[in-house]
Amino acid sequence: MGAPVSDLFVTAPAQARHSALVSRAAAAGINVQVISGEAMSELAQTVTPQGLLAVCGFIDVPLETVTERRPTLVALLANVRDPGNAGTVLRTADAAGADAVVFSDASVDLYNAKCVRASAGSLFHLPVVDLSASGAPGTRGIRLPDAIAALRAVGLRVIAADGRCGVTLDDPQARDMLGGPTAWLFGNEAWGLPPELASQADVSLAVPIYGKAESLNLAAAAAVCLYASARQRAAERVSSPGPAPGQSRSPEPI
Amino acid sequence: MGAPVSDLFVTAPAQARHSALVSRAAAAGINVQVISGEAMSELAQTVTPQGLLAVCGFIDVPLETVTERRPTLVALLANVRDPGNAGTVLRTADAAGADAVVFSDASVDLYNAKCVRASAGSLFHLPVVDLSASGAPGTRGIRLPDAIAALRAVGLRVIAADGRCGVTLDDPQARDMLGGPTAWLFGNEAWGLPPELASQADVSLAVPIYGKAESLNLAAAAAVCLYASARQRAAERVSSPGPAPGQSRSPEPI
Repeated sequence: MGAPVSDLFVTAPAQARHSALVSRAAAAGINVQVISGEAMSELAQTVTPQGLLAVCGFIDVPLETVTERRPTLVALLANVRDPGNAGTVLRTADAAGADAVVFSDASVDLYNAKCVRASAGSLFHLPVVDLSASGAPGTRGIRLPDAIAALRAVGLRVIAADGRCGVTLDDPQARDMLGGPTAWLFGNEAWGLPPELASQADVSLAVPIYGKAESLNLAAAAAVCLYASARQRAAERVSSPGPAPGQSRSPEPI
Repeated sequence: MGAPVSDLFVTAPAQARHSALVSRAAAAGINVQVISGEAMSELAQTVTPQGLLAVCGFIDVPLETVTERRPTLVALLANVRDPGNAGTVLRTADAAGADAVVFSDASVDLYNAKCVRASAGSLFHLPVVDLSASGAPGTRGIRLPDAIAALRAVGLRVIAADGRCGVTLDDPQARDMLGGPTAWLFGNEAWGLPPELASQADVSLAVPIYGKAESLNLAAAAAVCLYASARQRAAERVSSPGPAPGQSRSPEPI
């Protein structure tokens, strides 16, 4: 999956620092423009711009593109409103080996500048589905419950990350399910998952609280959940080097 | 450890919503003042103030207060510059059951408003050491290497979280050490731990990267590390319900 870059704006100092990159961009037919530091400050919306700014097309994919590839680890963002949190979950999902991330229509805009920056490039590493009205054509009209059903239909267990749940990630009964094909459902920063959404999951698990904190930051909780899956998947690959989890299920996507 | 609140500013709507809390504060001798929404907006420095603002004294403690209590899980922030990250690590350390958090003199100000807010109250739940010039009297002149030595002297293994390290949290040889008394050393958001600091740790471990991300956000990485310790500690408590880890070591603090 490449980033469809159309334009590259660069300051003179950044051009000098990254001359090979800028040359490659120009050779690839990208419109390169050298601009002043002032213009960059205005365009980049950051306190300390890095001196390079690319204009890209939208890259989110229809949900079908994800289900067709028989994913085994997916993150679903139900109501994540803080762009920094959303981008961080995207980056963490990528690091944990997830196959895709789905943004519900109630979540922050995937292309929010803070979300893109917080993803640290992971937006370009794995397929992202945007269920908002501005998502890819194949997602129009698909709501989160439909996405949950579609992922379940290709063999994923939908696990809600719910701090109010009595069973935690570290309980022995959780371990067995964590290595299986999983779609993690993450809720809102302030109020978590509303019951009507949590009830659509196959099971709920809490990140255990060993101290006095009432809860975790959403991106921190997602990191612990996604890495609990990643660790169990890695352990099972080592102990039974057979087919990968995705290959042991029906080859027929919905 | 209580928060030494001296003043409580409250808007009229917040006073109505939280009348029992405001009455308790007044009864405890705290100076309560009802102020306008405009004054609150100015004081709170947030887009949507919650209508309650307390003035507290500093609450960080000398390093000795931490070492005297024979801690078994500590987070050391070496060069964490983003206040949101620092506060989130503090909150996560609390949730994972850590005994203390140490801010190096090169880290963000513990009392930065964003750090306090991101800690979501955890600043008041566990002892925090501030090695900057404005830290508690007992910490003046103590630098991070001294703090590392002091924690090691009370039996903690110092583990550097270092993405460049070849051994990961999920490697079998890491598991055995994760359940023991540990001080996690976390570096900077952008450049990680400089070699001269990483080399002061007893061992380094990386959060494994299963996908294409180059690295994790600092607070996400800290969450995965601290919960790897918490999980292993919990598993060892279940399998051998003997004395707690802190009680199996020398009772003599330095």
